[in-house]
Amino acid sequence: HRSFTATSKWRLRTKEMDEDMLKSLRVNRGRLMEDLHYTSQWGTGARWGEAPTETGMSRLALSDADKKARDWFVETTQALGCKTTVDAMGNIFAVRPGLRNDLPPTYAGSHLDTQPTGGRYDGVLGVTAGVEMLKVLADNWVETEYPVGVVNWTNEEGARFPISMVSSGVWAGSVPLETAHNLKEVLPGTKTMKEELRRIGYLGSTPASYEAMPMAAHFELHIEQGPLLEMSNKKIGVVKGVQAYKWFTVHIKGRDTHTGTTDLKSRADALLAASKMIVHSHRLATAHSALASTGILNLSPGSTNTVPGDVTFSLDIRSPSDATVTRMKQAILEDFQKIAAGEDVMGSNENCTSGLPLTVTITEDFSSPATLFDTDCITTVSSASHCVLGPNSNNLLMEMTSGAGHDSVYTSKRCPTSMIFVPCREGVSHNPEEFCKEEDCALGADVLLQSVIRFDRVRGE
Amino acid sequence: HRSFTATSKWRLRTKEMDEDMLKSLRVNRGRLMEDLHYTSQWGTGARWGEAPTETGMSRLALSDADKKARDWFVETTQALGCKTTVDAMGNIFAVRPGLRNDLPPTYAGSHLDTQPTGGRYDGVLGVTAGVEMLKVLADNWVETEYPVGVVNWTNEEGARFPISMVSSGVWAGSVPLETAHNLKEVLPGTKTMKEELRRIGYLGSTPASYEAMPMAAHFELHIEQGPLLEMSNKKIGVVKGVQAYKWFTVHIKGRDTHTGTTDLKSRADALLAASKMIVHSHRLATAHSALASTGILNLSPGSTNTVPGDVTFSLDIRSPSDATVTRMKQAILEDFQKIAAGEDVMGSNENCTSGLPLTVTITEDFSSPATLFDTDCITTVSSASHCVLGPNSNNLLMEMTSGAGHDSVYTSKRCPTSMIFVPCREGVSHNPEEFCKEEDCALGADVLLQSVIRFDRVRGE
Ligand SMILES: NC(=O)NCCC(=O)O
Ligand SMILES: NC(=O)NCCC(=O)O
Repeated sequence: HRSFTATSKWRLRTKEMDEDMLKSLRVNRGRLMEDLHYTSQWGTGARWGEAPTETGMSRLALSDADKKARDWFVETTQALGCKTTVDAMGNIFAVRPGLRNDLPPTYAGSHLDTQPTGGRYDGVLGVTAGVEMLKVLADNWVETEYPVGVVNWTNEEGARFPISMVSSGVWAGSVPLETAHNLKEVLPGTKTMKEELRRIGYLGSTPASYEAMPMAAHFELHIEQGPLLEMSNKKIGVVKGVQAYKWFTVHIKGRDTHTGTTDLKSRADALLAASKMIVHSHRLATAHSALASTGILNLSPGSTNTVPGDVTFSLDIRSPSDATVTRMKQAILEDFQKIAAGEDVMGSNENCTSGLPLTVTITEDFSSPATLFDTDCITTVSSASHCVLGPNSNNLLMEMTSGAGHDSVYTSKRCPTSMIFVPCREGVSHNPEEFCKEEDCALGADVLLQSVIRFDRVRGE
Repeated sequence: HRSFTATSKWRLRTKEMDEDMLKSLRVNRGRLMEDLHYTSQWGTGARWGEAPTETGMSRLALSDADKKARDWFVETTQALGCKTTVDAMGNIFAVRPGLRNDLPPTYAGSHLDTQPTGGRYDGVLGVTAGVEMLKVLADNWVETEYPVGVVNWTNEEGARFPISMVSSGVWAGSVPLETAHNLKEVLPGTKTMKEELRRIGYLGSTPASYEAMPMAAHFELHIEQGPLLEMSNKKIGVVKGVQAYKWFTVHIKGRDTHTGTTDLKSRADALLAASKMIVHSHRLATAHSALASTGILNLSPGSTNTVPGDVTFSLDIRSPSDATVTRMKQAILEDFQKIAAGEDVMGSNENCTSGLPLTVTITEDFSSPATLFDTDCITTVSSASHCVLGPNSNNLLMEMTSGAGHDSVYTSKRCPTSMIFVPCREGVSHNPEEFCKEEDCALGADVLLQSVIRFDRVRGE
């Protein structure tokens, strides 16, 4: 056996390991949870329970808290023998050498940024499970055939800079670097991604590109963020793909006027129009069995006795079917114009005095088509799950499609990819109370570990 | 004749003036406009035209800009021989002595604060016309029988601190001083009125009270802020009263969840509920021939892919009839609860998947019942208008009810009060483009001057 660090005495090569040895590798659950909760000191959010760990997270991408979590990631992976590379989007690649280092690593990856009122698991579980994987490999003196990596992607949430998965998007060549670098923060909307990358010292010199940092595969462990696993008493979701979604900014221009002296007919009330559009988007979602959501709404001037002349809001539409998302988009473009013009759409004007016409502009900020993951990777995750879940595994796993976007959407465009889901309490995510049982975190991390080792063992054959 | 300043040579006493002399007193239109536009240097707002004066105003109460406008008011009225008094709400009373100074002054009054995106006339015209009145009295060596005053009321707009007419309200004994002092600014909501009064040096030691600062009468010149005068080609509105209004804060509590993984049924979407309530408030306003308006809406957490769990919005309802406002309030209290609970109200749920129940709390922040002005003061304004408008006056004035609240609402509770309206372009107010012709400003100021002199002449008879 070839050694890869000076202190190593012997190696257990994945390719040479016997089946039982391979199957028996498991994460250290206590250590995994310790890492996960340890990193929550940077950007601790709202408290929801008595226990020390019962708080949410508020670690917006490229904030001071995010910098500290990144520093921890770099130090920890380096201490485990990894070489770390930061690219032009602040993506951090930690690579543990294998036997054949001329070929790209097999990656586990996710993100350390959170929602403004997020939880401790969304993204963080995937990264800390990747770190735990490195520790298990080190503990067991495992030498992989090819290098193995863990990647932390920047601003996956799209919460601070309003494109989700933006940095894996640049890596994949789907989002132009310029667009990403110039993205302005949502609130209060002044700093750009590039400025903030530079400020926290994570504007790397390596190009953000699948060519500069190629991947043999990308496996991502994540909480489901929805209720399906929990409702059906399953432990592992084998994720076959991700539904389609689009993000829009809707800007309505009316006229500021006095609330006490302007009769309803003489108003161009941008907030009334926005309210009708938001209700209408839900009617359309209902009609299309799709989703529509508005998470941000800003108005001007913001005075109790002034009818707002200016409203901007975000609109997020989703469906497993690209065709449905396209139809929803068409309906929105047409119907919002009608609502602004004062026409009735599905009862939007019923019993309601209509005012003066307003103008509406709708910008598509982001689009992620429906994604299907790689069949080999799905099979790898599936067999890893059977291994981890044991004899009753058929009753404990299910195949599913992700409702949320993930960096795996973009990696799947450039390398074999798939994901592992674990249940979270009541399906609640993007909420401080987001919670995943220790047992389930560990099962998911075991499946991640098993997936990466298995992939390493069979790849190139 | 008794002299009241050392330099005076002779006096024209109002009581002794002949009818023709009295009727011929007019303001200096150029000087009035100069003062009005001069004060616009403090808090200049958005530009809407080419001319130097074609900008709006943004002079929130107790801001640095407001302090400068106040300083100008104090210096200018003192230079005209007035004694100025600042009370505990920062109201500034400038009093020009008359022959009998043992009795309260006859006041002209309005306010120098503006909306965040307001115009140059709302409030400012009334105060500068009061100052111009003092100048005309001085120019013509007029000695009034009783003292004459000009008052600048604090935070009339209710735009920065969310109770309109709050300081005349304290003066009248209708709003407790504590409540007013502790009012927090709307955005970003940290400083109190008392802190800001102290900061800009306008926390006076005189009690804010009609007992400490009694008034014989209060006349207020104001732009109409609505379209009625312009539409009917009238020049002067003789204001007989003010419609009723109430302000509410509506707070909806739902649950932050992921937009991509939470199906419509499992959501407690506070913004969707708020949108339904805003649309519904307009349906109720239509049904009651009343007004309903939302000018402020804040949500949390404010992320494109998080369903907002928390929304707060303002609601302003108005009608000339107290009974209608009461019925509207009842309907809102009941129906908003139903909407929050997921029930359909007037089609609010039609074609729309209903989610989980939310909670809603509705706080009444402010109530101003319908106001009727003093018949003697209305008659005074009416005869002053006939005098100023001349032979065709019957075609040029109309009696009307104010849609907006004014400090005269509160003064009317403690002294004879009435108002004078002048037309403004397209009825637009609370907008930078708010505009009143010079000719109309001057006509209104003439009616104000004539009203005060006439009241002084007949009072006590
Ligand atoms: N996993 C996750 O919450 N990603 C954010 C992107 C999305 O909005 O789906
Ligand atoms: N005149 C005016 O705009 N006053 C503000 C109070 C109100 O909202 O009516």
